[in-house]
Amino acid sequence: MISNSMQEMLKGSSVIRAMFEEGQKMEKIYGKENVFDFSLGNPNVKAPKKVNDTIKQIVDDIDSVELHGYMLNSGFVDVREAIAKSINKRFGTNFDFNNIVMTVGAAGGLNVLFKTILNKNDEVIVFAPYFGEYRNYIKNYDGVVVEIKQNPPTFMPNIDEFKKKITKNTKAVIINNPNNPTGVVYPESVVKDIAKVLNEKQKEFNKDIYLISDEPYRELVYENEEVPYLTKYYNNSIVGYSYSKSLSLPGERIGYLVVPNEVSDFENMVQALSIATRILGFVNAPSLQQKLIMQCLDEKVDIDYYKKNRDLLYSSLTKLGFECVEPKGAFYLFMKAPNGDDKEFSRLAKEEHILLVPGSSFSGEGYVRLAYCVSYETIQRSIPAFEKLAKKMGII
Amino acid sequence: MISNSMQEMLKGSSVIRAMFEEGQKMEKIYGKENVFDFSLGNPNVKAPKKVNDTIKQIVDDIDSVELHGYMLNSGFVDVREAIAKSINKRFGTNFDFNNIVMTVGAAGGLNVLFKTILNKNDEVIVFAPYFGEYRNYIKNYDGVVVEIKQNPPTFMPNIDEFKKKITKNTKAVIINNPNNPTGVVYPESVVKDIAKVLNEKQKEFNKDIYLISDEPYRELVYENEEVPYLTKYYNNSIVGYSYSKSLSLPGERIGYLVVPNEVSDFENMVQALSIATRILGFVNAPSLQQKLIMQCLDEKVDIDYYKKNRDLLYSSLTKLGFECVEPKGAFYLFMKAPNGDDKEFSRLAKEEHILLVPGSSFSGEGYVRLAYCVSYETIQRSIPAFEKLAKKMGII
Repeated sequence: MISNSMQEMLKGSSVIRAMFEEGQKMEKIYGKENVFDFSLGNPNVKAPKKVNDTIKQIVDDIDSVELHGYMLNSGFVDVREAIAKSINKRFGTNFDFNNIVMTVGAAGGLNVLFKTILNKNDEVIVFAPYFGEYRNYIKNYDGVVVEIKQNPPTFMPNIDEFKKKITKNTKAVIINNPNNPTGVVYPESVVKDIAKVLNEKQKEFNKDIYLISDEPYRELVYENEEVPYLTKYYNNSIVGYSYSKSLSLPGERIGYLVVPNEVSDFENMVQALSIATRILGFVNAPSLQQKLIMQCLDEKVDIDYYKKNRDLLYSSLTKLGFECVEPKGAFYLFMKAPNGDDKEFSRLAKEEHILLVPGSSFSGEGYVRLAYCVSYETIQRSIPAFEKLAKKMGII
Repeated sequence: MISNSMQEMLKGSSVIRAMFEEGQKMEKIYGKENVFDFSLGNPNVKAPKKVNDTIKQIVDDIDSVELHGYMLNSGFVDVREAIAKSINKRFGTNFDFNNIVMTVGAAGGLNVLFKTILNKNDEVIVFAPYFGEYRNYIKNYDGVVVEIKQNPPTFMPNIDEFKKKITKNTKAVIINNPNNPTGVVYPESVVKDIAKVLNEKQKEFNKDIYLISDEPYRELVYENEEVPYLTKYYNNSIVGYSYSKSLSLPGERIGYLVVPNEVSDFENMVQALSIATRILGFVNAPSLQQKLIMQCLDEKVDIDYYKKNRDLLYSSLTKLGFECVEPKGAFYLFMKAPNGDDKEFSRLAKEEHILLVPGSSFSGEGYVRLAYCVSYETIQRSIPAFEKLAKKMGII
């Protein structure tokens, strides 16, 4: 009765659901404080105080018909202009409201973008390991996912393989910086390498290839790590942003796409993005949230909270002999399964009440992902469990 | 560079954009008060006072991580339970939270639903004239739109044609009650006729056919018109609802789908809807708006505002000799083009600074749609212009 494609999806999702349900069962049996759930990327840091203050203020200040009403499908012009100025100030770019399309989070933005650019069988290149939802977003519009294999231990893109896998059917490339699930940040040199390859290949195949930068974790970097702003390195760049993590508003579904004037077919592209926003049923990004973030462009969640978590988790796990990628951004830690089998290792971890996600879900076989957007106390309490796990794996 | 399907969309949308831009130009030349814009279905009535009061209250009362955070993709359980109870109280149904999926407005809900049920080339029946976006929503998932011709002057569904057009490929039927663009309300007898045909055809073709009721205008009815609740008449019914008009929150993108237990394959259906919500990039309906409407289930915008507008517009136009469908609900008036050519008539109306939408946009050739969600004064000021138009058309 439901569509064939959704029947396929149901099969896949039941595994994740089973994991989630088992976690809840474990919490009931052993107590919440004795289960160490590192499986979900759900921010647990409060939004900055200014967020709620601003909501109360704009409800009083802005006329109700405007505040809750329709606007252009691309979003309020004043909000888009303010975002453009904020980006310009931070990154030395030269955008105005025409370059900004407000979206229902980064996920909504990527769907709108793929609807706009993908023809059937167009190829989209992703660097493994990567956020598994990209697969669905690409398939929604009959695109084909092309994976570049993961490149441990640095997890920087393998540029040689990248070159080889670009074909006449390549329409776009996604990078996710800082990265989910590895926590690495691609430095400027890597972005330049990618741009160089793409410029060559655009000439070779005489076609446009879009470089999509998915940046929900842009603000979540430690030690002042620089996250290069893509549009400065490659003309056909499109940036997807979300306030889910930077302002801890994941449920509110608010983000934007940046389309520079330099993108080929710019006029048609921005107009098509606006139409795609409408016909996919988003219609527009939530109006109150648009007006809210306009007032909070210089706000950020407490990054130190995540940094403290990262420091404790990374140092504890490496001390116990686990091989980990040092997270430079986002709130994920990517750890090698000592036995080489990420699913079996996850099962063994669960015996110690530790919940983590096998890397296979991200095309990152042999590794597991720990989301450390949990309380500091959870990490502290989990250390003895990791110690038992380390002993069981024979690494101490 | 953009996809072929979006290039097609761009061509179509440039007509509407041209109309919009011309309207704005006219306002500049003749003054806003001398242009009578009946083209947009954008509510101009403020949300009930309780809406903004509640927003301020929940921002204080609900923990920030919950209020702005992720929840199940189907929405907060407490919100869904409250909605179910409210529907039960009003319509004598027997729903609980499992029957409710929160959506990004009705448009988001329909997209999620079509993603969930449509295979390539599945047919979806619509009764002309109908909201033109249905075409896009259906095509997004490779479905085929099958139109039942408009049936003037009552604009009730033509049941004989309906029977004939159901085939082994029919997957769903949409009704929109009260109707955009006609303003008619299908009474119980019509709903029963539709249900009877569908039950017969389900048996004949030995398959499920879903009846989708798109109900953003449910609360906007005059003289206590009854809008039948579909799930009571047909098992495979799914109801789509939105608060865009009932609470004047169109920009906030908040609505829900109702899936009764009686729907075939219920368990898989609700789970697939939840997955579709996620993978299409909605992820969930905006969280603050969910918590808001939970407190405003008994609130409504000022219906009398629209009723006063309807009464003035309908009586004035009929007095001038225009042939109009009497609106029983929504905020649209469907009027016959006296010359039989809705596009030419719209052009002539524009000469009198009256903006209206040709019925062709709704597969309602020979008629035009007037959206009377404008100020009462706009309608008052427009009467002399309509009088000139009537003279020009030779009907007075």
